[in-house]
Amino acid sequence: MSDRASLVADLRRVDPAIDHLGIKIVAVDQDSVELALTVEPDMANGHGILHGGYAFLLADTALAYCCASLARMSMTRQAEIAFLAPARVGARVTAVASVRAVQGRTTICDVRLEADGVLIAEFRGHGSVV
Amino acid sequence: MSDRASLVADLRRVDPAIDHLGIKIVAVDQDSVELALTVEPDMANGHGILHGGYAFLLADTALAYCCASLARMSMTRQAEIAFLAPARVGARVTAVASVRAVQGRTTICDVRLEADGVLIAEFRGHGSVV
Amino acid sequence: MSDRASLVADLRRVDPAIDHLGIKIVAVDQDSVELALTVEPDMANGHGILHGGYAFLLADTALAYCCASLARMSMTRQAEIAFLAPARVGARVTAVASVRAVQGRTTICDVRLEADGVLIAEFRGHGSVV
Amino acid sequence: MSDRASLVADLRRVDPAIDHLGIKIVAVDQDSVELALTVEPDMANGHGILHGGYAFLLADTALAYCCASLARMSMTRQAEIAFLAPARVGARVTAVASVRAVQGRTTICDVRLEADGVLIAEFRGHGSVV
Repeated sequence: MSDRASLVADLRRVDPAIDHLGIKIVAVDQDSVELALTVEPDMANGHGILHGGYAFLLADTALAYCCASLARMSMTRQAEIAFLAPARVGARVTAVASVRAVQGRTTICDVRLEADGVLIAEFRGHGSVV
Repeated sequence: MSDRASLVADLRRVDPAIDHLGIKIVAVDQDSVELALTVEPDMANGHGILHGGYAFLLADTALAYCCASLARMSMTRQAEIAFLAPARVGARVTAVASVRAVQGRTTICDVRLEADGVLIAEFRGHGSVV
Repeated sequence: MSDRASLVADLRRVDPAIDHLGIKIVAVDQDSVELALTVEPDMANGHGILHGGYAFLLADTALAYCCASLARMSMTRQAEIAFLAPARVGARVTAVASVRAVQGRTTICDVRLEADGVLIAEFRGHGSVV
Repeated sequence: MSDRASLVADLRRVDPAIDHLGIKIVAVDQDSVELALTVEPDMANGHGILHGGYAFLLADTALAYCCASLARMSMTRQAEIAFLAPARVGARVTAVASVRAVQGRTTICDVRLEADGVLIAEFRGHGSVV
C-alpha cells in the first residue's frame, strides 16, 4: 500500500459514516482520490432524483480524503457546488477530488461528480488543516 | 393552514427522503421557513462531529421548502456554504431559510444553521424554478 | 459624526483608490453602509455594459467599509457574486452592505447592488480582521 | 494567427476597457488563455496593496476571453474568488484561465492569479453563452 493510500486508510478507520452511506474508496492516485456511491431510494426525492445534499456530502468527503492523502487532515471551511444534471436512483456516482492550490493551512480542492459517466456537478472546497 | 404552509405540505408529500433523515418542518412564516433535525451517530465522523454534508443537505432542503412556500418549486442550481462551528451528536440543528432576491426564474435564498442555538454555518443558494 | 461614521472616515483617508473611481459614501446606518458610483465609459465593454469586475470592486469596497464601521477593519478572504442584470453607462450603481454573521475574526457581509433602483447583483463576502 | 487567437482578437476589438487598465493578452493556448496587468498606484489601497476588485476584474476578463476563444462568447453569471496573498504596486499580475466544464450554455472556468510568480488568488466563474 502506498503512503497516500495508507493515510487514506487511517482516516477511513475513524469515519464510520461513509459505510452507512455505502461510500467506497475507488482509487488513491498521484494527484487525486476517487470515491463512489450508488444512489439508494432513501437518497432521492419523490421524482427519483438524488437530493443535491448527498452529492455535496460525497464531494465533501472526497475533499477530506484527498487532503488526508497529502498528510493534511482537514476540515472544510467553505465550499461551493454547481448542479449540472440529475442522478437517478440506481446510478453509480463517482467523485474525483484533486488539489487546485495549497497555501499555508488552506487546501483548495476541486471535485468532479459523475453519474454513470455523465457530469452532474462541480464542487470547489477550501479545507483547513486540523 | 395558510397558503404557504399548504404549498410546503404539497412538497413534503413527494419528498420521503426527509423522513428518512428525521427532518421536521418547524415553522412556515411570512418571510422564512424553518426546518430541524437531530444529529444521529450515523451522521457524524469518528470525533462525534456532524459531517458538513448533512448540514448542507438540511440547508438545501430548507431552500427547497422556502421556494415552494412562494409557489416557486425550485431545484438548486448553485450553492455555497461556510462552516463556522461544529455540531455534536445529539444536538438539534435548525435551518432558517429566507429569500434574499427573486429575479426571473432565479431565487437567491440564505439559510442560517444553528446547533442548540449556536451559529454553525451560513448557506446561500440559487434555486431555479422547475 | 457618529462613531461608525468616524471609523468609516478613518478608512477612507488611507484608501485613495476609491476617489479614482468616483466611489461615494452615501450612508453609514445602524446596520449597513451604502456606497455609490456612476458608470463611466471606461468601466464598460463595447456594448456599453458595466464590466462585472467593477460591480465586484464596488461590493468588495462596501464590505470593507461595513466591517470598518464595526471597528473590525478587514481584508476579504473569499467572496461570491451573482450577476442578475446589466448596468449601462451613466447609471448610478449603489451597494448596500450589511452584516450577516460575525464569528471570531470572520465577518460574513452581504451586499446588494442596484443600478438606478434595479437589482443587478448580489454579493456575499467573508472578511477577516487584519 | 490560430482560430482561437482570432476569436480572442474579435472580442478585444469591442472591449476598450481592458486598454484603459493596461490588461495585455499574453497567450492563447490550446487549453487556456493568459492575461496580465501591472499594479498601478491607482489600483492599490493606502498600504500599497492591490484592491481585490482589480484581481477579480482581471480574472473575470480572463474567463470572458477564454470562453470567446472557444467560440462561446459569454457573460459571467456567477463567480467566486479566494484571496490567498497580497500583490504590491508594481507587481505583474497574471491570470491563467482554463475550462473546467462545459454543459449546455454554461462554461465553468477556473482562473489562477499570480503576482511575480506567487499565487495570490483562485477564481471560479460560470459563463453563460450570450
